[in-house]
Amino acid sequence: MPHGTTTPPRPTHDLRQGVPDAASFPRTAWLAAARRALTAAPNEAFGPGDPQGRIELRRALAEYLSRARGVRTTPDRIVICSGFAHALRLLYGGVGGPSRGVLRGPLAVEAYGLPFHRELLHGAGVRTVPLEIDENGADVGELGEVRALKAVLLTPAHQFPTGGPLHSERRAQAVDWARAHDGLVLEDDYDGEFRYDREPVGAVQGLDPERVVYLGSLSKSLSPAIRLGWMVLPAHLVGPVLAVKGQREAWASALDQLTLADFLASGHYDRHVRRTRQRYRARRDQLLAALSAHAPHIRATGIAAGLHAVLRLPAGTESDALRAAAHQGLALDGLGPFRHPGAAGLAPDGLVVGYATPPDHAYAAALAALCRALPAPD
Amino acid sequence: MPHGTTTPPRPTHDLRQGVPDAASFPRTAWLAAARRALTAAPNEAFGPGDPQGRIELRRALAEYLSRARGVRTTPDRIVICSGFAHALRLLYGGVGGPSRGVLRGPLAVEAYGLPFHRELLHGAGVRTVPLEIDENGADVGELGEVRALKAVLLTPAHQFPTGGPLHSERRAQAVDWARAHDGLVLEDDYDGEFRYDREPVGAVQGLDPERVVYLGSLSKSLSPAIRLGWMVLPAHLVGPVLAVKGQREAWASALDQLTLADFLASGHYDRHVRRTRQRYRARRDQLLAALSAHAPHIRATGIAAGLHAVLRLPAGTESDALRAAAHQGLALDGLGPFRHPGAAGLAPDGLVVGYATPPDHAYAAALAALCRALPAPD
Repeated sequence: MPHGTTTPPRPTHDLRQGVPDAASFPRTAWLAAARRALTAAPNEAFGPGDPQGRIELRRALAEYLSRARGVRTTPDRIVICSGFAHALRLLYGGVGGPSRGVLRGPLAVEAYGLPFHRELLHGAGVRTVPLEIDENGADVGELGEVRALKAVLLTPAHQFPTGGPLHSERRAQAVDWARAHDGLVLEDDYDGEFRYDREPVGAVQGLDPERVVYLGSLSKSLSPAIRLGWMVLPAHLVGPVLAVKGQREAWASALDQLTLADFLASGHYDRHVRRTRQRYRARRDQLLAALSAHAPHIRATGIAAGLHAVLRLPAGTESDALRAAAHQGLALDGLGPFRHPGAAGLAPDGLVVGYATPPDHAYAAALAALCRALPAPD
Repeated sequence: MPHGTTTPPRPTHDLRQGVPDAASFPRTAWLAAARRALTAAPNEAFGPGDPQGRIELRRALAEYLSRARGVRTTPDRIVICSGFAHALRLLYGGVGGPSRGVLRGPLAVEAYGLPFHRELLHGAGVRTVPLEIDENGADVGELGEVRALKAVLLTPAHQFPTGGPLHSERRAQAVDWARAHDGLVLEDDYDGEFRYDREPVGAVQGLDPERVVYLGSLSKSLSPAIRLGWMVLPAHLVGPVLAVKGQREAWASALDQLTLADFLASGHYDRHVRRTRQRYRARRDQLLAALSAHAPHIRATGIAAGLHAVLRLPAGTESDALRAAAHQGLALDGLGPFRHPGAAGLAPDGLVVGYATPPDHAYAAALAALCRALPAPD
């Protein structure tokens, strides 16, 4: 396949990670929830908002997160925000002027993660310290060795993007470190609801609500178009986070908050997660079947959960595979950009394949194009 | 009336400025717009959002702002945000890490304004230079005398909170200054739709769209619970503002954006503004009638527009009047906190009376309590 100077075609298939299937948005159920919620809302709901978030939503989330994710909380420990990145900004600064976050000092992060989150932290002046990842997840044993470390950011349900869950011993170890060092575990539960082959892994937060900040949002489970996320905070952080957020709600739409509260409480959120979980599992199975048929030498990892898998590639082949994918009309990311700059250890080659985004009718063609782009067996 | 150490009662009437009547929120029309908009929306509307804002909304705003406010724009010059404060942050930093705004240097502001906006600017490291206000509005003739000045923030439709419009000669003068100094006028059109006794004053932006940044939001006209605002930008600022905003919409709900687009295009926004304008004018007239009957020695200013008036007080009586108001069960602000620290010239005493917030049934009692709190004639 000649690459060289040929311009790749405009992508026809989007296999980038992280975006739920837009066609699956439950318009009718959402509108019905909006109608019920806005009709029932007190007049003050249309006035200036409580920066902690609507109480209706915090109540519904406390119930849901307890039941579905093993989170131990009450509504007064929850603060609503616009999504995960907004939560990071509230914690480390970057909204309301420089240095207005509530946490200080370096932050340990996983050696793989979203470049956008690293940029956001670095922009707020936070030094990030990468933790290597092995088959049990992030090596939290390294935490004790970093001087002045006060917090670690983890994706325990499904390491992003490499895909493994954090082992139960590592979970306990992270919480023990936080207890011993007056530290915090920041738990990014970005796709905790989408586990396919066994029971969901509960949130680390359940181990110690005073040492874990639990962070969630709608971006993977329902839609990134609804700008709502939530922080479940230890008692001592509620006041400081609200002080940073300001006197009135400046970000999260009260109408979306009220609607989501009804959507959760009426069981529509559970139904939507169940339905999309089945859908994404079928998508994942199709991906594995395609690989098995057309590229059996390629191993897929991180497949037990989530909206993406990682295809492991022979060393030195990632760039070629990405070029080939572009020529096959695929929008696709390699594993490389997710790696923390300066992280020690080996940086394996791979492709991060999101299987939630393409419409149904185009998915088989997307997989066929993907298989054509993969390196041939040795 | 003994004040001294007596604790004032919990306020029973809210006469603070700036919040529209929450009971007037048009629930039915908004829900109908949501139903139409979400049913008609393409699937991609539920995916990651364009940080410029939904095209449906930018089209509807371009039409509305041209017709109602004399703004000269096209949809590609509009950037959607979460409100006025978010717009200020995009321009001067404070979202996405320190020093990420697009404008630099000191900013001239009116000698009266919202303390929250000054704090936000100072938090982002911006030096504000106050312009005195006279009967023609802010003295923009001072602009040429400030070294390195590149921008001025004005409330031309209804100076906040003192209440006068910026005189047409001053408007031309501000734009001339911007042209001569490669500068910008930032136009905060916070309640431009609510003018009572004559035709609305059009936006300064219409004088020179390449020298004026026009800023608007729903906070006064519809509800502060819907976190939507808009910037109408000179061509050269669109790219830089979008670069600061990021690759995906992180703030403004796409569902609210789509609904507002329908609400505007279907004429419901015009109807709502007309209805609330009548309502607030009647409220203002009731305030003036109460003053005329019970405190004819007190002069009200800034009454031709908006959701609040300023009651001018004899020098040195503002604190006493505020204490008396608190004892009458009124939540109320004095003129003092709105004044820029260090502004030259006289600082007159006064009360800023918002007449939009109390429910209908309580408004007469609120006015009676207000009149009881006012200083007696000399």
